[in-house]
Amino acid sequence: MKHFSQQEILQADKSFRRDFVNCLSGYKSLNLVGTINLETSQTNLAPFSQVFHIGAAPPTVGVLFRPHTVERHTLENIIQNGFFTLNHVTEAIYKQAHHCSARWPISEFKGTGLTEEYRDEFPAPYVMESPLKVGCTLLDQMTLPVNDTVLVIGSIDQVYVQEGALGKEGFIDLEKLGTVTVSGLDGYHLGKKLARLAYPKPDQPVKEIGES
Amino acid sequence: MKHFSQQEILQADKSFRRDFVNCLSGYKSLNLVGTINLETSQTNLAPFSQVFHIGAAPPTVGVLFRPHTVERHTLENIIQNGFFTLNHVTEAIYKQAHHCSARWPISEFKGTGLTEEYRDEFPAPYVMESPLKVGCTLLDQMTLPVNDTVLVIGSIDQVYVQEGALGKEGFIDLEKLGTVTVSGLDGYHLGKKLARLAYPKPDQPVKEIGES
Repeated sequence: MKHFSQQEILQADKSFRRDFVNCLSGYKSLNLVGTINLETSQTNLAPFSQVFHIGAAPPTVGVLFRPHTVERHTLENIIQNGFFTLNHVTEAIYKQAHHCSARWPISEFKGTGLTEEYRDEFPAPYVMESPLKVGCTLLDQMTLPVNDTVLVIGSIDQVYVQEGALGKEGFIDLEKLGTVTVSGLDGYHLGKKLARLAYPKPDQPVKEIGES
Repeated sequence: MKHFSQQEILQADKSFRRDFVNCLSGYKSLNLVGTINLETSQTNLAPFSQVFHIGAAPPTVGVLFRPHTVERHTLENIIQNGFFTLNHVTEAIYKQAHHCSARWPISEFKGTGLTEEYRDEFPAPYVMESPLKVGCTLLDQMTLPVNDTVLVIGSIDQVYVQEGALGKEGFIDLEKLGTVTVSGLDGYHLGKKLARLAYPKPDQPVKEIGES
């Protein structure tokens, strides 16, 4: 195996280091975060690969914001008005989702052709093309001292999920939705199912769900 | 689309809610976290799907711990001695990785047959079968007031990656490694590549890396 110490990582080119370290945690979720500036009414849409589950009761999600990046409009809008949406990205729109991270002088919706959608009077834009959309309100934010990234904690207030992908027991089939996953900064993948595994016990072999 | 308000999510069965909310963020990374109790010398190995990139310089990673779960030994060991490892999970070992979350009275390494490995005097066990392993030291920890989950921030001190999967420019090919991704609590998937996309600009169409 190839070995890197922290010193070697720090001494590498900035672009090598960024690609390398971004790959280490494994596959990442991909969500388009939709917001609106209430003063100018300009909408904003940005791809995030640092969105993660925090808890089910209350249903909460975390979004990590790097400081001083092009994504800061998203954070400013969330702090200003307290609302944002999460929208899954599919194969049909992943290039547009990637394009959202360019430095647009206009709304990324207009720039990329993705469609703003408003539902049930929620005051932030969803992405019409997305098969799973979540409306969130800002619950808490904290700055991580290690590098000034900002952790936003959102309350999950509204969920819209494409019919047919949701099982009776709550599990959502991400392959049916066509949800994309990301590696590093710019690698896009679909999922290819291995199995769902049943609750494990020490004295029994692991079983697939549905296996008798 | 099927719609759920927060109230409907909270009124659903606990198991429905847990499966449902765990799927909302999309695909998740999967890492086996290896630790050791320095007093008893008992090792511990637990699967985590809430490991995420925090920053590249310094190279740091976050791990979110639910309170009062079987995984608490991992957190106790990390707080006690300050070291842990992250180990990617492949198709060859994902059932063993899943089995690690059973309530073993012995080390999960012994219980599941995964192999403890020590490298370069790092004081926590790696998983020999894993194609990408990271040795981390505890940098910081904070409790999220919303639900008492604990965010552990680790410094990435050592990285071991299988030859052949690391590109010259730092990108690691997770499909070559065979890294597995998770949906919900128990869905396991491999990645199926769509493309890597070049740095986007507003006035140009999105290009695939390697595309002229």
